[in-house]
Amino acid sequence: MGNENDEQPEDQNSMMPTKPKRAFASDNNAGIHPRVLDAIAAANEAHVIAYGDDPYTEAAVELFHKQFGKDVEVYFVFGGTGANVLGLKAATESHQAIICADTAHINVDECGAPEKFTGCKLLPLPTNEGKITVDQIRPFLDAVGFEHHVQPRVISISQATEMGTVYKPLEVKKLSDFAHKNAMLLHMDGARIANAAASLKANLGDITREVGVDVLSFGGAKNGMMYGEAVIFFDRNLAKDFKYTRKQGTHLPSKMRFISAQFSALLSDDLWRKNAAHANSMAKLLAQELGRIPLIEFTQKVESNGVFVRLPKKYIAKLQKQSFFYVWNERTSEVRFMTSFDTTPQDISDFVALIKNTLR
Amino acid sequence: MGNENDEQPEDQNSMMPTKPKRAFASDNNAGIHPRVLDAIAAANEAHVIAYGDDPYTEAAVELFHKQFGKDVEVYFVFGGTGANVLGLKAATESHQAIICADTAHINVDECGAPEKFTGCKLLPLPTNEGKITVDQIRPFLDAVGFEHHVQPRVISISQATEMGTVYKPLEVKKLSDFAHKNAMLLHMDGARIANAAASLKANLGDITREVGVDVLSFGGAKNGMMYGEAVIFFDRNLAKDFKYTRKQGTHLPSKMRFISAQFSALLSDDLWRKNAAHANSMAKLLAQELGRIPLIEFTQKVESNGVFVRLPKKYIAKLQKQSFFYVWNERTSEVRFMTSFDTTPQDISDFVALIKNTLR
Amino acid sequence: MGNENDEQPEDQNSMMPTKPKRAFASDNNAGIHPRVLDAIAAANEAHVIAYGDDPYTEAAVELFHKQFGKDVEVYFVFGGTGANVLGLKAATESHQAIICADTAHINVDECGAPEKFTGCKLLPLPTNEGKITVDQIRPFLDAVGFEHHVQPRVISISQATEMGTVYKPLEVKKLSDFAHKNAMLLHMDGARIANAAASLKANLGDITREVGVDVLSFGGAKNGMMYGEAVIFFDRNLAKDFKYTRKQGTHLPSKMRFISAQFSALLSDDLWRKNAAHANSMAKLLAQELGRIPLIEFTQKVESNGVFVRLPKKYIAKLQKQSFFYVWNERTSEVRFMTSFDTTPQDISDFVALIKNTLR
Amino acid sequence: MGNENDEQPEDQNSMMPTKPKRAFASDNNAGIHPRVLDAIAAANEAHVIAYGDDPYTEAAVELFHKQFGKDVEVYFVFGGTGANVLGLKAATESHQAIICADTAHINVDECGAPEKFTGCKLLPLPTNEGKITVDQIRPFLDAVGFEHHVQPRVISISQATEMGTVYKPLEVKKLSDFAHKNAMLLHMDGARIANAAASLKANLGDITREVGVDVLSFGGAKNGMMYGEAVIFFDRNLAKDFKYTRKQGTHLPSKMRFISAQFSALLSDDLWRKNAAHANSMAKLLAQELGRIPLIEFTQKVESNGVFVRLPKKYIAKLQKQSFFYVWNERTSEVRFMTSFDTTPQDISDFVALIKNTLR
Repeated sequence: MGNENDEQPEDQNSMMPTKPKRAFASDNNAGIHPRVLDAIAAANEAHVIAYGDDPYTEAAVELFHKQFGKDVEVYFVFGGTGANVLGLKAATESHQAIICADTAHINVDECGAPEKFTGCKLLPLPTNEGKITVDQIRPFLDAVGFEHHVQPRVISISQATEMGTVYKPLEVKKLSDFAHKNAMLLHMDGARIANAAASLKANLGDITREVGVDVLSFGGAKNGMMYGEAVIFFDRNLAKDFKYTRKQGTHLPSKMRFISAQFSALLSDDLWRKNAAHANSMAKLLAQELGRIPLIEFTQKVESNGVFVRLPKKYIAKLQKQSFFYVWNERTSEVRFMTSFDTTPQDISDFVALIKNTLR
Repeated sequence: MGNENDEQPEDQNSMMPTKPKRAFASDNNAGIHPRVLDAIAAANEAHVIAYGDDPYTEAAVELFHKQFGKDVEVYFVFGGTGANVLGLKAATESHQAIICADTAHINVDECGAPEKFTGCKLLPLPTNEGKITVDQIRPFLDAVGFEHHVQPRVISISQATEMGTVYKPLEVKKLSDFAHKNAMLLHMDGARIANAAASLKANLGDITREVGVDVLSFGGAKNGMMYGEAVIFFDRNLAKDFKYTRKQGTHLPSKMRFISAQFSALLSDDLWRKNAAHANSMAKLLAQELGRIPLIEFTQKVESNGVFVRLPKKYIAKLQKQSFFYVWNERTSEVRFMTSFDTTPQDISDFVALIKNTLR
Repeated sequence: MGNENDEQPEDQNSMMPTKPKRAFASDNNAGIHPRVLDAIAAANEAHVIAYGDDPYTEAAVELFHKQFGKDVEVYFVFGGTGANVLGLKAATESHQAIICADTAHINVDECGAPEKFTGCKLLPLPTNEGKITVDQIRPFLDAVGFEHHVQPRVISISQATEMGTVYKPLEVKKLSDFAHKNAMLLHMDGARIANAAASLKANLGDITREVGVDVLSFGGAKNGMMYGEAVIFFDRNLAKDFKYTRKQGTHLPSKMRFISAQFSALLSDDLWRKNAAHANSMAKLLAQELGRIPLIEFTQKVESNGVFVRLPKKYIAKLQKQSFFYVWNERTSEVRFMTSFDTTPQDISDFVALIKNTLR
Repeated sequence: MGNENDEQPEDQNSMMPTKPKRAFASDNNAGIHPRVLDAIAAANEAHVIAYGDDPYTEAAVELFHKQFGKDVEVYFVFGGTGANVLGLKAATESHQAIICADTAHINVDECGAPEKFTGCKLLPLPTNEGKITVDQIRPFLDAVGFEHHVQPRVISISQATEMGTVYKPLEVKKLSDFAHKNAMLLHMDGARIANAAASLKANLGDITREVGVDVLSFGGAKNGMMYGEAVIFFDRNLAKDFKYTRKQGTHLPSKMRFISAQFSALLSDDLWRKNAAHANSMAKLLAQELGRIPLIEFTQKVESNGVFVRLPKKYIAKLQKQSFFYVWNERTSEVRFMTSFDTTPQDISDFVALIKNTLR
């Protein structure tokens, strides 16, 4: 839990080549998809009303309605941690608890932002593949009604998970059914929801609303946007005060139109799916190639755009210097390779060649 | 963690005899020691300045100085959860983390109060006997310096623990040495510090300040007081703003003199030790007697005033109706018996007879 | 607002006589009424279940039901700031605002506790006599629906006010009508509700529930109790989660029975009214006597147990050394004299003689 | 305070022409300066490390160092409310207070975000022109050391102010001197710092660091950027933990390079000054033209890019329908016109003609 060096190489400068090139460290390291950038430029004319009361935002929300239905509430925010934290705030009172995987982004990679802003306790569950189950959650119900204990209120899952795995729709449904039967809600951190949908060859609605998700963080930046995420409420009652929560939560963008224009690009012509499917297929290709290298051992199923493997420890630093990536678990020599919308087969050939060369 | 029915019988009314009698449910169920009540009455004359600027408070602080040294900072608050939460607030910034046993009162029995007021994440560690060790804590250091992760700042231990066990001074010293070497602090939840000192036949200072504790919640209510706890800072820098923290934390008592008078009684003539030693000896006696009953299995060492045993499930409800106590873990049929300053050998004989009779 | 030296004499020790005596500094400086102390002693037998599930608490709640009706929710907490803060938390979301007098205890004397725990902004209104009116509040409605502005949610008034004045029932009714018409709530800080009721010769219900109060902090300590206040919800929906709010707010007393026993004493045989009426009458007497001293100028109507007057600046420190009291406003030489349940006519004669002697 | 309709026209859709055109509602309604957009496109190549450990960010920080000195700490965040709130968090403990103008953005336009995240109370001061003075602040010092009162810690000023006025360097210096003499800090909300510098024909450092500012929110979006603000610490001790505060405050952008590239564009070739100077000169021109219309009355000096005037009430709605702007104060018929980097003289001629035509 505390042992991944997720996003911070110790000495990044020495590893950074003079000219940036693509690598496998993170989908956050990629840039902006050209069509997204074009959309920003196209929205850059004259004045529109700030804070979201503009035609670009209206159009983007319309596109979300096409994906999820007209009766969902859609709010744009600056970033992913903000989306998670504010979505969770809308679903909780401070004496309640949020149940999640111990590997969840909200649990390990947000510097305690959920606790700080919601006042809630997070109840992390151990998991090997980033997924949680009803059987793990059930014991928390013993606390219901006892004022000394935090009250379970939200089950939060990541789709795709931080371990590159993907919940099957039925797995999500079981969690939401359990949640709803017990006066709880299901929150989905969809920073990589597009990768999950592409992996499952499903529509966005089928793997969220249709399987009982109540609040969704819909990711943009990891799938070709410059910045911007959406908080989507399938349970509209939760959105009742959300415009205030977003503003008080410091996530109401003034020049909203530029987030909206990006989302419109992403949701047009299935760009969201193409980007994600491409990243996923590159991960499959990478895994396939790595599978041929004897010293490499897979630690997770490759279901989205992440590949987790164990490497002999002595080669890691040497490899990182040539093409930076993150060690996920120093104790077990587990590393993470992420592909993105702009990864090319050539990138993979080059990287695999580098690994082979290094491990020789 | 979520599965103890700690303080709430499901239908207490049916279990409550018309005339209150002593039982083994909780040391919080006991009343006020006569000398403490006398001290309250004696302090009830004329007017003194409110909020602690009075001679009774001065006298009580003096008695704490005798126990711990003149250079410690002593603040009285209403209750134990307040003492813990405010002491932790004084030691943390909101992006930091508090490491504790998963059974810790701050983790399971304060309804998320530490998270709400400090903004910090709690990092609970599994433990069978309520104690944590340096080896368990060390991996959290991997997070130091990475802004995505909460920063470990406080190790919090309970003395005596919630499982009735007691840290040996050297065990505490190892934790504080580790903490201080790593820019961390050691917090002690001493709701039952008196029971620990009595168990260890040690002075209060020897098991706190001398082994490196930085902040101590010093318990009163569980050892014969009516209400009132103290937050004691051995690291005085932490107390710099504490008078404001206490007031903003809603724990500045107006008629402070009555908490002070109680503490003066407790700290005079070793009453604190006598009360605690008596409770501990009653727990030993109870354990001794229970040890003779074949169907009873001990789950914890009896080192302070708690006795944890497994009982055949079918007898539990029946027993509770005759003399109420708490089931600690419904899944394992583990129950908790607590003794207190006013428990008598006769109480134990009666209770053991009842158990024998029921289990027959 | 920031310029009263409310509760902290600069050099209290030099002012404190060896033997405590009654003075006019604060009703918080008084002790415990004998019948309240007797009730504590009487409740000190054997064991009862902690945290409020005990017959003493049941009895005290019953007495509150007699005052306010069976369908109100009653919760006991340790102190007055806690009562205010937790009652307000139950009535608000963090993006909302609490409107109050600039002299309100919640605004100036709680070290920001309401903001810290509720996350809300306080909107203070100027007032000369501690009361606010609908006309002052109306402009805040302009903010309704605009996400950039905090949303007005609670009107909070103090009864009696911090300036010793008392809202007439109709004045309260106007505020609650306005509140309810605008989806707002009326909170009453009743730290001195008994003094107000005695002043108005009204029942407790008539000046709270009957005039539209939704949440009431019912004061105990300023009217003869040792510690303990009640949060009373006339709008029961607000109490839905309050048992958790109280626990997370660190105000769930373990040995609850001793607060309950005190309230039972206070609410029996009209002790609450007798204490308050006596304090009020002593204030009237003091005011009458002071009215005969030419250099003294009244700054507030004397409607409860506080007397506010202007004194020539040069005499203040000298007087304080003989009988301590607080300067309310250094800039205007305004001082505050408070009477309490234990003030005697002799105390007043002595004090007035002292003043006359000093001002001569 | 609550009576400006700052950013929300009641029925914006009917006012929005099919084709967006420039108007005078807000500098937030403008788009992106072409050179800023070019810089984004230029930064869009290959991969760089996320979260700010990239050469674009290094370069942008370097440009800030050129403006302010090498020993300042510079952190980029998503937006202006985030910049203010996090900068204030770095400078405060929750029991402290932030003193500001009652018109301050932090006080009226951030939906209570400062209170929610810092836990502090804001102490607003009345002002006619958006500026505050030492004489107004001095009385708050009476609270220092009294635990019942919030402790004054930060003076926060807006430069340029929300009323379009600009603090002279000496005015700022007087505030910072007072702050530092009294263990306080000076925070500057510089959402329009560029307009202030252009107005004063001063360097950025001369009107911030050189006159004692400790923390600065450096605005980007209102001066031609798409999004992104900087928090600049002149007192570096305040920045000690800021990387965690930013992350926990949900304002660590993943694709940081795109904020950095924008700032680099803004700080190159004096673009920041050119944009701001242009906006200011357009405001002067607008004011000059409006000055010739008899029914228009100026309510503020025109010192930056805002023009505040009183209009006969009956014309306001009609005008708004033709070219949207905000009513600042409905009660006094005061309206606000803002110019921006892209306002043209033709825009002004058209708008003035429209006004003349309407008011005829």
